[in-house]
Amino acid sequence: MRPVRTVYIAAQAITPFIGKGHPDFIFKGHPDFGRKNNPTLEEQMALALNSLFDGNRLDPSHVQRGYVGNFGGELFCNQAHLGAMVSRAEPRLAGVGMSRMEAACASGGVSIVAAVDAIQAGLDVALVVGAEVQTTVKARDGADYLARAAHYESERALDDFTFPALLTRRAKAYKEAYGLSDRDLARFSVKAYSNANRNPLAHMHKAHLTLEQAEKASDENPNFLQNPELKPHLRVSDCSQVSDGAAAILLASEEGLSRLGLRPEQCVRISSYGMAANPLGMVKDFLFMDTVATAAAEALRDAALAPGDIQVAEVHDCFTIAELLMYEAVGWAQKGRGMELLNSGRTTLEGDLPVNTGGGLVGFGHPVGATGVKQAAEIFRQMKGLCGDYQISRDLGTGMTVNMGGDDRTVVSLVISNVN
Amino acid sequence: MRPVRTVYIAAQAITPFIGKGHPDFIFKGHPDFGRKNNPTLEEQMALALNSLFDGNRLDPSHVQRGYVGNFGGELFCNQAHLGAMVSRAEPRLAGVGMSRMEAACASGGVSIVAAVDAIQAGLDVALVVGAEVQTTVKARDGADYLARAAHYESERALDDFTFPALLTRRAKAYKEAYGLSDRDLARFSVKAYSNANRNPLAHMHKAHLTLEQAEKASDENPNFLQNPELKPHLRVSDCSQVSDGAAAILLASEEGLSRLGLRPEQCVRISSYGMAANPLGMVKDFLFMDTVATAAAEALRDAALAPGDIQVAEVHDCFTIAELLMYEAVGWAQKGRGMELLNSGRTTLEGDLPVNTGGGLVGFGHPVGATGVKQAAEIFRQMKGLCGDYQISRDLGTGMTVNMGGDDRTVVSLVISNVN
Repeated sequence: MRPVRTVYIAAQAITPFIGKGHPDFIFKGHPDFGRKNNPTLEEQMALALNSLFDGNRLDPSHVQRGYVGNFGGELFCNQAHLGAMVSRAEPRLAGVGMSRMEAACASGGVSIVAAVDAIQAGLDVALVVGAEVQTTVKARDGADYLARAAHYESERALDDFTFPALLTRRAKAYKEAYGLSDRDLARFSVKAYSNANRNPLAHMHKAHLTLEQAEKASDENPNFLQNPELKPHLRVSDCSQVSDGAAAILLASEEGLSRLGLRPEQCVRISSYGMAANPLGMVKDFLFMDTVATAAAEALRDAALAPGDIQVAEVHDCFTIAELLMYEAVGWAQKGRGMELLNSGRTTLEGDLPVNTGGGLVGFGHPVGATGVKQAAEIFRQMKGLCGDYQISRDLGTGMTVNMGGDDRTVVSLVISNVN
Repeated sequence: MRPVRTVYIAAQAITPFIGKGHPDFIFKGHPDFGRKNNPTLEEQMALALNSLFDGNRLDPSHVQRGYVGNFGGELFCNQAHLGAMVSRAEPRLAGVGMSRMEAACASGGVSIVAAVDAIQAGLDVALVVGAEVQTTVKARDGADYLARAAHYESERALDDFTFPALLTRRAKAYKEAYGLSDRDLARFSVKAYSNANRNPLAHMHKAHLTLEQAEKASDENPNFLQNPELKPHLRVSDCSQVSDGAAAILLASEEGLSRLGLRPEQCVRISSYGMAANPLGMVKDFLFMDTVATAAAEALRDAALAPGDIQVAEVHDCFTIAELLMYEAVGWAQKGRGMELLNSGRTTLEGDLPVNTGGGLVGFGHPVGATGVKQAAEIFRQMKGLCGDYQISRDLGTGMTVNMGGDDRTVVSLVISNVN
């Protein structure tokens, strides 16, 4: 889909992505230790909205519509109906039409699509906020909640950790088909942690990981699946983080920008989007992500670009194998040859196609509903030179995001262009 | 919002709305008795989509986008990510971009808004399906799930049945302010059941209710709240039904209609929509539904209509008091005088402003995510003469829906125009 009216990303915000008992909130030396908790879902939304509006000196009263990306508020936090939570988090948005959208881990991406369409329908300023708080429950219970993003009836029994197992079927198949090694997958983890180490907002900012640590299963890095066929093919270091966090972007038309008091060159444009969904529980090919391919091809086609035109990308590395398969599904590498792209170094911060520069889902973290919004915000930050220690030094004209829900079931891909 | 491109409702479908252990599915004389269950959420979606496409001889391959309205699939059915369930329910929709939207009981309404915007963005055929299955759990557990549509942290403790209690605060306040009687509220129930008795799809199709039965609390019609201040002001007969069901509509541009092989006069138009949200847990005025008023006024303004121009309406009578308050918030009656409108008979099937002709949420039933979609489908059916025993005999040019999430927290209102 190519927007007929120009759609700008006018501003963005990302909260720190954090794990359970984060020291900023449960500081051991603090008299409140044990009583301070990670921010609630409402507080995460407020943090992102405060940063978006006040941090950028923008007036919320210009917002005419909003979408909230969230996967499991009703499960993790006993709270659904998050469209009507927005104006608790930012009272100046009271009265504005807001909806929550859910497409598993693509909840943020589908929210952006709805907001782009709202601008096409004639609105001038639309808000997208993605948020998730998952540290309220034990990992095993969280895995059961997340399994509701798969076809629960037929897929839940695969493993207590259903989603890691689903994606590990792909890793196992890829190893068998193309000779992928544990060391190969470990290289994705090392890239992710290395980038996250330069990113103060990242969940893994202070966690260091060597190739040796990532490659070998160990007490610190166990093969934690129970399914005996899949267990050897996944280590903790292959997984995205169970994070709390939020991200927000403000979309605007030309007219919206001027109301906000912004100039186009302070912004980036959403040049196109692709969106596709395929039936739950019916993955056709463990070796190829069809839905990613459909959505990315639509986005590229409608932006009149080829895969090689992309200069910076955020892809949905919920597990290391996913980043590999996305290289191939987007068309940056041929089938079975994605490791060559990684090994070439082209997708590192120093390469010509840096992917997941802030650490991706493995390093930056994965607060489910926030992820798709964070990806778009990250491209904005790289294009506008806001990435600090992980800033790409070249000028960046064209970026891409790939946000995936479930095992290649719902995918939203954006092409984003810098405005100079 | 007034669509710049004309948006038609090209077709609609509604499944039978049913309660727990419905005899069509657990027939006592059947050898499978005790083993047949109500349809699952996936099956409800399939029933609606089959009726929409095959029932109307329409080809699903024309659909370019879809939205699924659902409140609590992950709670009631362990199943979220329902955008990717659509192509399990209707395999010919594989590959098409789909998202689930949630705004409590307005989940259907917000889905329609997103689909209208998608048509404005240039797509030609968009699907909206709303579905809910809630009979999988006990009423008390279901009430806890539904409380996630309120501000759970601050409102859950109001009563085990949080939502009935929230709306009953309004009934109590209205009684105190304007002298409303139990008999007054009972008249809404009687209208709803009477209409439902003519509607074979209605949950209450075979349940008869007299004014005397509805007015007096009894063993069959108890005051079931525990909160002592609110308990006297709500009977079971004041409540919408805990139903399973689904509804679907197909939206199309002019171009979309011709692809579908339909003529405009087989369809109706969405002339405008209004949408508003206000903060959870912060109802300002128990006597007036501000958010309804905002959304309905926007819809009427953008259709260049006054409240008196509406000839048929579907309003969100989650409880009897809500229908009364909506008469006043839309502007059909002055504040405090809604009972006069009901007592005039104008909102019955024989009146000039029939409201909730198929029984509304109290009589037809309330499968949460389906309700907003069903409302639009009902206006289509009345305009096109498809309502059988509850068909309005006059020609209907202009209709309205009001779909509400939470206690006046998210509201979508549509103005729908017949095409002759």
